[in-house]
Amino acid sequence: MTSIRPLLPADRDAWLPLWHGYLAFYETELSDDQTALTWNRLLDPQFPIHGALAIGEDGAAVGVVHWLTHAATWAAEPYCYLEDLFVDPAVRGGGTGRALIAHVTDWARERGLPRVYWLTQQHNATARTLYDKVATDTGLVHYQIALDA
Amino acid sequence: MTSIRPLLPADRDAWLPLWHGYLAFYETELSDDQTALTWNRLLDPQFPIHGALAIGEDGAAVGVVHWLTHAATWAAEPYCYLEDLFVDPAVRGGGTGRALIAHVTDWARERGLPRVYWLTQQHNATARTLYDKVATDTGLVHYQIALDA
Amino acid sequence: MTSIRPLLPADRDAWLPLWHGYLAFYETELSDDQTALTWNRLLDPQFPIHGALAIGEDGAAVGVVHWLTHAATWAAEPYCYLEDLFVDPAVRGGGTGRALIAHVTDWARERGLPRVYWLTQQHNATARTLYDKVATDTGLVHYQIALDA
Amino acid sequence: MTSIRPLLPADRDAWLPLWHGYLAFYETELSDDQTALTWNRLLDPQFPIHGALAIGEDGAAVGVVHWLTHAATWAAEPYCYLEDLFVDPAVRGGGTGRALIAHVTDWARERGLPRVYWLTQQHNATARTLYDKVATDTGLVHYQIALDA
Repeated sequence: MTSIRPLLPADRDAWLPLWHGYLAFYETELSDDQTALTWNRLLDPQFPIHGALAIGEDGAAVGVVHWLTHAATWAAEPYCYLEDLFVDPAVRGGGTGRALIAHVTDWARERGLPRVYWLTQQHNATARTLYDKVATDTGLVHYQIALDA
Repeated sequence: MTSIRPLLPADRDAWLPLWHGYLAFYETELSDDQTALTWNRLLDPQFPIHGALAIGEDGAAVGVVHWLTHAATWAAEPYCYLEDLFVDPAVRGGGTGRALIAHVTDWARERGLPRVYWLTQQHNATARTLYDKVATDTGLVHYQIALDA
Repeated sequence: MTSIRPLLPADRDAWLPLWHGYLAFYETELSDDQTALTWNRLLDPQFPIHGALAIGEDGAAVGVVHWLTHAATWAAEPYCYLEDLFVDPAVRGGGTGRALIAHVTDWARERGLPRVYWLTQQHNATARTLYDKVATDTGLVHYQIALDA
Repeated sequence: MTSIRPLLPADRDAWLPLWHGYLAFYETELSDDQTALTWNRLLDPQFPIHGALAIGEDGAAVGVVHWLTHAATWAAEPYCYLEDLFVDPAVRGGGTGRALIAHVTDWARERGLPRVYWLTQQHNATARTLYDKVATDTGLVHYQIALDA
């Protein structure tokens, strides 16, 4: 049975290949400095970015989720943005992704946050089959202006 | 010529109908307490939510934009989320929306922020005509779990 | 018996004379805009400034405390700075100040914060009699450079 | 001539003995984990703790200062708390401490912050000789309740 637990300092070696797998899925590369910064922030109790691992029956990490909170104009409490979600392809379809989302939702509900949201690729039918079961497709699409090119 | 400037304490009466117009477009109602809280946050120099008004030639407010910054796992600096954008229907098509977006983009660029992004309704063809000119449609769609029902 | 409870939106009229009494003790005047800003921040669940009132047996507010958290270089968790403390002169010596400090200390302990601290005038013998009972005089003194003159 | 500049990632080996010298002066020991956390925060552009080094004519680091900002009830903008200041005993009396304080004061002034403050030991006559020249002794003393014992 897969279990979900918060990231710990000793998890870096287990976390790194999941993080790289996630970035590869989005055809993104980040510098080692950025990965180190993100890791430090995930572990810092005062930084608003958080993470959890899915641990398989054999003790290996098979999935990861990162989320953060931010203020919003429609609510007194912050929103919870589930920014990164990745499950080892070898265990997909077995409920790990759903369990990782539930972990974040529980975390947010315990803190009185009004909503959890995320973005996904329009054409990722596999992921959206799961998302359509656990969340609402709001019909909103995402525009971006990159300033760091 | 329409000009854009930051929200000021004296703008409350001018801001309120634009805010209500925006909420009506999204078929949303917020309590007066929430509106007061959001207004106070927009004016607070320490809160990460910001706002600007578009002022028409006759001095009347004809558009509003709210944006905020939040941490992200892919970047050292925060992302800039353009959360709310509204232009008085009487002046639409005259460049006010584009000028409001440019104001936020300039604000973010001056602070070294790597990206500005927003969400919009998939079927809002009018808005997307503008957005397709000034930003990139990333192909991401938005899922949400409401916890405050 | 005096009880301590968090500030509520309906408390503004009860809070204001205590705030003014506190400022008068420190021979300080603040603008109405600053008082409004501080009040809004005290009530905002996302702002790191918090407040509580002491309520006497007859239901009247007889004391106030404001505190805040901030990062520090010696600890993973934030410090808790008890910034403002005031007790109506008519009820001094009856345990209200001690109860207000205990409220803040309990709040900090529940959140795992490592310390609560405050500053007081070196020659305020009355207050220091209480403080010497409940806290440690660290032997540190306070220097300041005012930049807003 | 000694110059002051912000901490950089490559400074860790130069910073560490100054940090340890500072902690030894206050008869404090921190875990390696805490030192790593503080170092990461000093370098993180989104964390409110900042640092600078004093560099002597031969390029060696001879002093360090850490400061942070936090909200306050008396001001719209944050206060600037100069938390840690240390100068290599071999170069004391040569203006390094004064230059480090000036660096922080300039940083705060550029950002519109209303005050810079710090704490020091009542009986540290050497340090206070400098502080009495550049700042105001407010007559406030410091009380603390340690919760992490």
